Amino acid sequence: MGKMNKNIITYYRQKFEKELFSSVIPFWEKFSPDKKNGGFYNCLDRDGAVYDTRKHIWLQGRQTWLFSKLYNTVTPKEEWLEMAEMGARFLLEKAKRKDGRVYFSTTREGKGLWMQRKIFSECFYIMALAEYSRASGNTEFMEEAKSVFHDVWQWSSDLSKVGRPIYEGQEESQGLAIPMILLNLIEEVAANDWEDYKEEIKECIRRMLLHVHSERKLVFETVTPGGEFIDDIEGRLLNPGHAIEAGWFLQHWAQKLDDKELSQTAVNMVRWSYRKGWDKEHGGIFYFLDSEGYSPTQLEWDMKLWWPHTEAVYAHLLNYSITEEEQDFRFFEQVSEYSLSHFPDPEHGEWYGYLNRRGERTHRFKGGPYKGCFHVPRALLLSWKLLKKLESDI
Amino acid sequence: MGKMNKNIITYYRQKFEKELFSSVIPFWEKFSPDKKNGGFYNCLDRDGAVYDTRKHIWLQGRQTWLFSKLYNTVTPKEEWLEMAEMGARFLLEKAKRKDGRVYFSTTREGKGLWMQRKIFSECFYIMALAEYSRASGNTEFMEEAKSVFHDVWQWSSDLSKVGRPIYEGQEESQGLAIPMILLNLIEEVAANDWEDYKEEIKECIRRMLLHVHSERKLVFETVTPGGEFIDDIEGRLLNPGHAIEAGWFLQHWAQKLDDKELSQTAVNMVRWSYRKGWDKEHGGIFYFLDSEGYSPTQLEWDMKLWWPHTEAVYAHLLNYSITEEEQDFRFFEQVSEYSLSHFPDPEHGEWYGYLNRRGERTHRFKGGPYKGCFHVPRALLLSWKLLKKLESDI
Repeated sequence: MGKMNKNIITYYRQKFEKELFSSVIPFWEKFSPDKKNGGFYNCLDRDGAVYDTRKHIWLQGRQTWLFSKLYNTVTPKEEWLEMAEMGARFLLEKAKRKDGRVYFSTTREGKGLWMQRKIFSECFYIMALAEYSRASGNTEFMEEAKSVFHDVWQWSSDLSKVGRPIYEGQEESQGLAIPMILLNLIEEVAANDWEDYKEEIKECIRRMLLHVHSERKLVFETVTPGGEFIDDIEGRLLNPGHAIEAGWFLQHWAQKLDDKELSQTAVNMVRWSYRKGWDKEHGGIFYFLDSEGYSPTQLEWDMKLWWPHTEAVYAHLLNYSITEEEQDFRFFEQVSEYSLSHFPDPEHGEWYGYLNRRGERTHRFKGGPYKGCFHVPRALLLSWKLLKKLESDI
Repeated sequence: MGKMNKNIITYYRQKFEKELFSSVIPFWEKFSPDKKNGGFYNCLDRDGAVYDTRKHIWLQGRQTWLFSKLYNTVTPKEEWLEMAEMGARFLLEKAKRKDGRVYFSTTREGKGLWMQRKIFSECFYIMALAEYSRASGNTEFMEEAKSVFHDVWQWSSDLSKVGRPIYEGQEESQGLAIPMILLNLIEEVAANDWEDYKEEIKECIRRMLLHVHSERKLVFETVTPGGEFIDDIEGRLLNPGHAIEAGWFLQHWAQKLDDKELSQTAVNMVRWSYRKGWDKEHGGIFYFLDSEGYSPTQLEWDMKLWWPHTEAVYAHLLNYSITEEEQDFRFFEQVSEYSLSHFPDPEHGEWYGYLNRRGERTHRFKGGPYKGCFHVPRALLLSWKLLKKLESDI
């Protein structure tokens, strides 16, 4: 790698460092803690004002994970551990019902408000407790994480166990999200001791790869259990940001397993999905597309959301660190420039989440029912670490 | 009313007549019938091509209602009765489960695909069968409609009966949609024999009026059972098109009941919601707003959908027919001009459904999971009839 690249790498390393530690993390430290009830307010307006007091458990779990991760992998700052503890205690004490199901949302006091017929609340609960256990050294949290993971693994292959109804006309199909999050959870729960999870890892990877249709260079959200294309609204759905995220999840495992073929597939998933999802007219990554060119039925399909962009930032950089090919670095630069020029709020900190197709901001809040302290700092953290490594390797 | 107004009224009467009978109705007649299985394809692309074969029961019911209504109130064309019968038979034979619940969607053959924990599928089923009974003269359909209405009335005050779960943290609240659709159903089921439903009518009107906060000139989607404002995401939500629709539903009853005060309230609901919802920068009616000026959490809040506009067309015209005030006619003209210049597709017929804030088309399909043969022809039909009356009254 040439000298010019070192300058560019240093440039991004510094940019991301500043965004992460001087804008994003301070926003959540300052505005989210609910010191009275524990946990975090996650519906935060542009300036950090709480505009709704309910707590969304996906975001409680993700924020707990994030602060634990900072403590574990950046520097053991007491304040970060305290933030993580505030979330972990709330999760343990309030988020889970006696039957093992985890709420989607609760009141600020932790009284149940809503439950999804899905397993994602449980997944973010597990992720949080596992990482917090490593941060705090309290093994009870890891035991709880592993025990819930065991349940979720069972439920994941039969969602009627979480109340998802089955009707006569439904055809069997499988979504990308479930094997993807389970694989990510194994990374979180097992860390480097993943030998016990070998079969599960293999199964998650097998199922994820069913979605990758190499002959068409497409990654489908929903396929038949055998991996075939389904020609209907769901079957044609592409979510480029999600496929890019799936790519880097798989790449992490390709590296651990030293699997060159899987690594190449993961590289391709990111490249294909990015090229397919990039809006050549206005820039940015579309939220949804229909593989056959019909209009997606999602009203928000052409919006530019923060998270497909943050996922692409890290995924391209990861690709580049493996391939050393210039095109991967060019993609990284392109999506980083788009992201840095559209999402950050230098006045109050954190990033905005939602833009229209033209890249104009449509929503001013920093936290909402699905946006919290997660995708922005996770991508910045992973990218910053990788940029530091690339800098020092030159 | 002056001579100029007569010309304008004739102009719109002709416009709407042409849209309704030469563009909208022919589109559905030509492309929607499923001659093999009965019922209608409702996922239709710009040119009428079926892009998904599933059947959404809201739309099966609404289309059946519409063709019955055309037959009953325009002219008894055999083709319209056949269309209505195709829908009514499919509904009766396929849409309802043994326990009385009606599916949200089925396969083309009518096998169950999805069931909502809501009562709206049942409501559109009732609406369809009642109007079809009048068209066909077959009283069995009316008996079925009345029997399901009886169930739905019970369920509507306790949604746990349709599987909606109750959690500890939930506060009691009430939405505008339920009393509104029940009141509309009474209009459909009872027609002019509504004496038997006097108590139910009173109760629906009472509940709808709880949402009308005159001191702030706002109509809230969700309030406490006592009608108080709730300061959270749902409580602050405004849906101007929905409030406008509620306005004309109430106006119909104000006329039947000869209730001047209710009539004035209904006029105000339409005016206030339209003024609040109109986008002064780009024109058109916003989909959602937050009463306190926060960003709505719905990603599509700033989009311009077909149905708030079609509802406003009829609601303003109805206001004008009662008030004879110029401002109501000006509103009617403004929203009619916006609608006619943005939504119709002169090439293939029917109207597009979805525009971004600037009024640019975002989705090319004519029918989807929530758009079918209903709001466009209903508003055109009601407005056309009223314009004819205004024309002849001058």
